[in-house]
Amino acid sequence: MSFDRLIRFVDEEGRKSFGDLDKPLSAKDIIGSEVQVLVGTFKYGFTKTSEKRKVKKLLCPLPDTPAVLCVGLNYKLHSNETNFVIPTKPVIFMTPNERLTGPLDDVIAHDDAQPMLDYEGELTFVLSKDAKDVKEEDALDYVLGYTVGNDVSARSLVPVEVSGGQMGYSKSFDTFGPIGPAITSAKLIPNPQALRLVTKVNGQIRQDISTSEMIFSVKQLIAYGSKNRTLKKGTVVMTGTPSGVGWFSDGLLGHGDVVDIEISDLGSISNKVVFK
Amino acid sequence: MSFDRLIRFVDEEGRKSFGDLDKPLSAKDIIGSEVQVLVGTFKYGFTKTSEKRKVKKLLCPLPDTPAVLCVGLNYKLHSNETNFVIPTKPVIFMTPNERLTGPLDDVIAHDDAQPMLDYEGELTFVLSKDAKDVKEEDALDYVLGYTVGNDVSARSLVPVEVSGGQMGYSKSFDTFGPIGPAITSAKLIPNPQALRLVTKVNGQIRQDISTSEMIFSVKQLIAYGSKNRTLKKGTVVMTGTPSGVGWFSDGLLGHGDVVDIEISDLGSISNKVVFK
Repeated sequence: MSFDRLIRFVDEEGRKSFGDLDKPLSAKDIIGSEVQVLVGTFKYGFTKTSEKRKVKKLLCPLPDTPAVLCVGLNYKLHSNETNFVIPTKPVIFMTPNERLTGPLDDVIAHDDAQPMLDYEGELTFVLSKDAKDVKEEDALDYVLGYTVGNDVSARSLVPVEVSGGQMGYSKSFDTFGPIGPAITSAKLIPNPQALRLVTKVNGQIRQDISTSEMIFSVKQLIAYGSKNRTLKKGTVVMTGTPSGVGWFSDGLLGHGDVVDIEISDLGSISNKVVFK
Repeated sequence: MSFDRLIRFVDEEGRKSFGDLDKPLSAKDIIGSEVQVLVGTFKYGFTKTSEKRKVKKLLCPLPDTPAVLCVGLNYKLHSNETNFVIPTKPVIFMTPNERLTGPLDDVIAHDDAQPMLDYEGELTFVLSKDAKDVKEEDALDYVLGYTVGNDVSARSLVPVEVSGGQMGYSKSFDTFGPIGPAITSAKLIPNPQALRLVTKVNGQIRQDISTSEMIFSVKQLIAYGSKNRTLKKGTVVMTGTPSGVGWFSDGLLGHGDVVDIEISDLGSISNKVVFK
């Protein structure tokens, strides 16, 4: 598996390709640039070529995934703002594979999802091999790479009296999981707990924190998440959002709002909200 | 897609095959019997052959699935026994594909899962094609078939103070989702809301109810579950359990307990609990 910052894109001639970036970039800045073509697949690995192609449109860097896991209440300040008890164990739940979308794609909300629509900037990682009963000290060997995620949530669909307090359904809609712009190889990110995450809505900063503030680290999430359970190669894990979500700052999302999320060393994504 | 009651099995010579039953049977009664071989796949469909093979071991009837959805609190009496508010919308959440196991396989519980281990007998169905924004009146056209499921739950891992009240993780372990014995073609089950479900633990009846008591019907679950969301062909949906689970009857599961679940017209499964 040989790549640095893998992207997936469509070029001027309509060809879909994988490409490699030589530095972290915002998704917007990748459009129109020439990138080195990668050949291969996630299953069998990638090889860099000498060919370059111009990026017309960015796609979700993963063409498919066996599972998308999410983590709730994983930053202390966010747990405080929600007034939830801080759970003793990681809050792991699943969301559909089909929600994943590209780093510049629109988030399309249907009527049910519009009343309390929220953003959640999250450090996101991808597994490089099947994981079961992994020890914490070995866990980072199972990470293929890291990316930026927006774990979009329709909060009106979460309450106990509406949907039994289950978080997954509120995030389960097609286009509700933009990730990207690239899968940045784990070899370039020796410590995933030392990255800065910044979320902006219409240019205004809403979340700004270090991943060192996570309650359960990437290592711990892999160890706990794989206990008596097979996490398949290619599984995506969104590691939870810090404080500053719209719900508690009177800043829920409306039609036309643009959410930008940047993580140091990983680049940034930018997604417009569309109420349909 | 031409089958009546599709099973997957290993014969005396170690060959894995699909087979077809001509009537509903308990998983135990299928062992040692001669069944008609089906050739084909879930992707491209099946054809009956004239060949018969003797069943040595039953496998999970689905070799793989894109997703396993679960429904919580979907019988009034169960909602009453849990003292939960009856939610206004279906409580839909996801669990891992890898939890599915065969109709006679052991349920293997690790230490975390043992303190409050519980059974949940559930009518389970499989989708025949991709579903998005399906109307209630069209929903049954999307069902490939029905089967019996045990939605095994480690209730000690659900509470808000432990895991944020999320139900999926407690059911997420390998072997925690026995289904079978067969996928019974939807053409044989014109009304999925008129089946009798009986769960026994060590031979003693614990759950005995008609699926007419479900709060949200199969039709309604497909319509709500596919709203702005693509449910892929082959998705498994466990439709929720009635009253009589172990939690409220002082009947939680221990090492060696055997859970039998039977649904009229669909046959029965039988799974032993193993504490590892």
